Amino acid sequence: MKKVALVLGSDSDWPVIKPAREQLKFYGIDYEVRVLSAHRTPEEAAEYARQARDHGFGVIICAAGMAAHLAGAFAAHTILPVIGIPVKGGMLDGLDALLSTVQMPPGIPVAAVTVNGAKNAAILAAEILAVSDSTLAAKLSEERENIRRQTLEKDIK
Amino acid sequence: MKKVALVLGSDSDWPVIKPAREQLKFYGIDYEVRVLSAHRTPEEAAEYARQARDHGFGVIICAAGMAAHLAGAFAAHTILPVIGIPVKGGMLDGLDALLSTVQMPPGIPVAAVTVNGAKNAAILAAEILAVSDSTLAAKLSEERENIRRQTLEKDIK
Amino acid sequence: MKKVALVLGSDSDWPVIKPAREQLKFYGIDYEVRVLSAHRTPEEAAEYARQARDHGFGVIICAAGMAAHLAGAFAAHTILPVIGIPVKGGMLDGLDALLSTVQMPPGIPVAAVTVNGAKNAAILAAEILAVSDSTLAAKLSEERENIRRQTLEKDIK
Amino acid sequence: MKKVALVLGSDSDWPVIKPAREQLKFYGIDYEVRVLSAHRTPEEAAEYARQARDHGFGVIICAAGMAAHLAGAFAAHTILPVIGIPVKGGMLDGLDALLSTVQMPPGIPVAAVTVNGAKNAAILAAEILAVSDSTLAAKLSEERENIRRQTLEKDIK
Amino acid sequence: MKKVALVLGSDSDWPVIKPAREQLKFYGIDYEVRVLSAHRTPEEAAEYARQARDHGFGVIICAAGMAAHLAGAFAAHTILPVIGIPVKGGMLDGLDALLSTVQMPPGIPVAAVTVNGAKNAAILAAEILAVSDSTLAAKLSEERENIRRQTLEKDIK
Amino acid sequence: MKKVALVLGSDSDWPVIKPAREQLKFYGIDYEVRVLSAHRTPEEAAEYARQARDHGFGVIICAAGMAAHLAGAFAAHTILPVIGIPVKGGMLDGLDALLSTVQMPPGIPVAAVTVNGAKNAAILAAEILAVSDSTLAAKLSEERENIRRQTLEKDIK
Amino acid sequence: MKKVALVLGSDSDWPVIKPAREQLKFYGIDYEVRVLSAHRTPEEAAEYARQARDHGFGVIICAAGMAAHLAGAFAAHTILPVIGIPVKGGMLDGLDALLSTVQMPPGIPVAAVTVNGAKNAAILAAEILAVSDSTLAAKLSEERENIRRQTLEKDIK
Amino acid sequence: MKKVALVLGSDSDWPVIKPAREQLKFYGIDYEVRVLSAHRTPEEAAEYARQARDHGFGVIICAAGMAAHLAGAFAAHTILPVIGIPVKGGMLDGLDALLSTVQMPPGIPVAAVTVNGAKNAAILAAEILAVSDSTLAAKLSEERENIRRQTLEKDIK
Repeated sequence: MKKVALVLGSDSDWPVIKPAREQLKFYGIDYEVRVLSAHRTPEEAAEYARQARDHGFGVIICAAGMAAHLAGAFAAHTILPVIGIPVKGGMLDGLDALLSTVQMPPGIPVAAVTVNGAKNAAILAAEILAVSDSTLAAKLSEERENIRRQTLEKDIK
Repeated sequence: MKKVALVLGSDSDWPVIKPAREQLKFYGIDYEVRVLSAHRTPEEAAEYARQARDHGFGVIICAAGMAAHLAGAFAAHTILPVIGIPVKGGMLDGLDALLSTVQMPPGIPVAAVTVNGAKNAAILAAEILAVSDSTLAAKLSEERENIRRQTLEKDIK
Repeated sequence: MKKVALVLGSDSDWPVIKPAREQLKFYGIDYEVRVLSAHRTPEEAAEYARQARDHGFGVIICAAGMAAHLAGAFAAHTILPVIGIPVKGGMLDGLDALLSTVQMPPGIPVAAVTVNGAKNAAILAAEILAVSDSTLAAKLSEERENIRRQTLEKDIK
Repeated sequence: MKKVALVLGSDSDWPVIKPAREQLKFYGIDYEVRVLSAHRTPEEAAEYARQARDHGFGVIICAAGMAAHLAGAFAAHTILPVIGIPVKGGMLDGLDALLSTVQMPPGIPVAAVTVNGAKNAAILAAEILAVSDSTLAAKLSEERENIRRQTLEKDIK
Repeated sequence: MKKVALVLGSDSDWPVIKPAREQLKFYGIDYEVRVLSAHRTPEEAAEYARQARDHGFGVIICAAGMAAHLAGAFAAHTILPVIGIPVKGGMLDGLDALLSTVQMPPGIPVAAVTVNGAKNAAILAAEILAVSDSTLAAKLSEERENIRRQTLEKDIK
Repeated sequence: MKKVALVLGSDSDWPVIKPAREQLKFYGIDYEVRVLSAHRTPEEAAEYARQARDHGFGVIICAAGMAAHLAGAFAAHTILPVIGIPVKGGMLDGLDALLSTVQMPPGIPVAAVTVNGAKNAAILAAEILAVSDSTLAAKLSEERENIRRQTLEKDIK
Repeated sequence: MKKVALVLGSDSDWPVIKPAREQLKFYGIDYEVRVLSAHRTPEEAAEYARQARDHGFGVIICAAGMAAHLAGAFAAHTILPVIGIPVKGGMLDGLDALLSTVQMPPGIPVAAVTVNGAKNAAILAAEILAVSDSTLAAKLSEERENIRRQTLEKDIK
Repeated sequence: MKKVALVLGSDSDWPVIKPAREQLKFYGIDYEVRVLSAHRTPEEAAEYARQARDHGFGVIICAAGMAAHLAGAFAAHTILPVIGIPVKGGMLDGLDALLSTVQMPPGIPVAAVTVNGAKNAAILAAEILAVSDSTLAAKLSEERENIRRQTLEKDIK
């Protein structure tokens, strides 16, 4: 199975992003966590993005706040699907990061998820890998069923 | 290769969404265009989503405006990656549709793209399918190179 | 008298929504509290909405945050009036939930109340039931008179 | 059957609000259209609201733009359910009117619908009257079924 | 000298509004503090507004949050200048209250000041009274000079 | 009677601001129209503001768009009441001008009116002058009565 | 004198950006216009930024809309001052471009100017070069004086 | 080397602005910290701006919140580059200050940086001075390299 790259623009975002790692672990998906910045280490970020496919990655998750260019910068250097997690902390509960992440120009898409939505980013990454992986697809279906059951149990209470 | 479902909440959005079809055609990806509404035909939408994987789909693209629930409603019924295109037309240049599409709760992700970003939705769908399809990946790389060249030609002018 | 269904998308919203129950109790209106999610338990939510009228309900109150689809999903499955309480917690003090709740497309209305406005949702539900119930109408008039008197007393202080 | 009052803050909003009248006619609901302003004719508006229930009204629909106080002013003088239609024209595609309409303080609710959502306001009014009127309820169910069918026909095309 | 009415929509806003009273006291302006609500005590509020000029008031200050109709409701019943203080507490740091206060329709103005700007409301009231009152004007000029000096002293530090 | 200064930051705003002049003429209030910019002619603007009271002015109306500093710059140099008209044209239907006008710091108030609200600015100016002018007050009361009657006539139609 | 680079993310923005060139010509500043995209030609953009100082540039102006990463991407590769012009066209009158441009993380600044503010970008570039260039400084002072005079002439009319 | 003026509209903003001073010290740039208000000490602010160039300043940094006119007021009186730091504290995480700072009219630019972005303002000031100062330019390049290295070290951890 392809790996997932989990890239943070700043290591201070780790507490918010950590649930993505837990979720990938839960699925048994191989992953790599990196701290690479579109602004502070642009060459390293570009290089990593360019080689990601050849290095066995299937999906890249980028988490950044404020003028969140990280996901867009990665998308500029790879044809792998890039998932962007807009991180709160700048202005307007992360609206700056959301618009900077999602409003990509025609030709270079980014897949934006919920603001601070680390868990959802990991699930989306798994869904992407599961398109061609029945075992992972089965795991995802089972997890959904569990979520459903848990909600129903809360309903009964 | 898996197919892509292109679902519109309202047929009046077709002019905005049409570029997604052109892009899928360009890649030679099989697709199906549907008009299904989370509010007007919820059962049919749910049924279509539930069977999408078994019917050979790999990605679902949902386009909707205003309180844009379509992508979220699809995501609730499938583990396939669901791409949401927020459509302008309600309030604030589509901010209503963007927030309704992207702010999904933990557990059920939607991949939001640019507001009115039909072309990007199709490219993202292709990137997802290309994770396990080298021929499509090559096409995407080639297209990127072409975009690069066209921009450089504009630069020379 | 018809009953009121009070549906939460997530049990974590209960502290915010509880005043709705207190208000319904105060009026002596029969109610049922449920935890049903448009995304995590979509079939159960749809089924509950479809049967609500036959099961003696007159009004449905739905409380949800973020991409708040719950009220819209209920409205898609019933002709009972559906009241939506947008819940804070996602972005912009609940603007995401407000727009996701109120901006419904033509044909399927939702009655949105104040963000986090659990009490107002319950009063609105009572006002709806009171259209054909003079006793409840009298209670509402009396309550209004009390609110007026309390405000005047504060004024005197 | 109870009547519906359709109140405009300004006669210039009539083209936007007219679909509400068509919808009420379609249901065979008795209605009265009035131009009353919370700011220009506050006494007449208050008087009309106070007597609405005694005059046989079951629901009041108020349409106003900008600092849209009309629905709130009506709600202050009646225990009938008051539906507010925020009208575009001031700022931010009607966000001023939406917030002025929906953000009512505890104790005095307004039921806000889609910005410029005249048709939805009328459907919601019908849903409220249908709580105690099986014939109207049947009409609403039939209309929903028709909407469903029309959407499915568009889907086939 | 004319008096200033300082009206609160809710007594819970008093801590925010108190600086207005201090400022009026500082100028030696006669004032009256009232708790009157556009929604909970609309008749009393209207009556108070209608008689304000005859009762010796020159300016009315209204403080309210959320769908802040208080200043507008007063303005509808008097030709005295009405100053509106939008109060934080609803959504978006008081943007709901600001838009509800300032976006008045043609014919019925409200003078909006800074969100939570109790002090500025009182100064503006004094400026209005000072148009025809040289003693008060002198006091205002002197205060300005003091503010200037204090800022310059901070500058020196 | 004191005069009203009507100051525009840019002569291109004249079509939007002209109704203020018509309204002042209608009341028979003496006025002076000036084009003075907080940024392009700051000295002249400051000088004009400083001398306004001595030159017989009672109120200053400032109209400006974008980073609308004009009203604030005037308020910094006079203790006359300064009314700010935020003008559309920059961003977000004039939200930039509204926030730049209304969000004044403690000590230096501006009275903001409706975005593009030239007529309301003139009425507010008249209300301010009428505090100590019974004839003008009578005119304002009469005008209000006329507005009321016109609305009622529209209601009858 | 150092040169100014005027970089567009897309040649379709040229009509909006052209006034920057006119302004630079007016000052007699050497400039170079380029079309380089942070997403479509990231390597070329990075290379151009890295060599800009050595190639005799003193300031870089970047114009881009939507998720406007261009200025930020340039700033990541140079220590020259980078001026960002947020361009309208995406959402909310360019708020997406403004936040993407201005909200840079600590360490890598961008100097944002008015949305669509091409002329101001060029003036700012000239001001920067004029810090060490008395002739250019004199030209800027003269231009300011002309602007002042033109505004005063409009005032007289 | 030219000096940098660091001007605060209010001394209460000092904790937010202090990092600008640290950064200037780090570069060995001469600076002067002042508390001058566009509203409370407009004459002193204007005078300071007018003489800044003659007094050896090369760049002016202005920090202000709410209706943040300080940078604009300075820009109106000097042809030195003026950097504006929008400060949080008013509304919407500083959106009021950002729009008041950045949306300057054609002819008088302000260089806006990140909201609360004191450090970035100082770096930008240094970049401006470094245009004609190779030693400072070398320091900036070295600092960038250090930032890069620190980020890479965090990456390794």
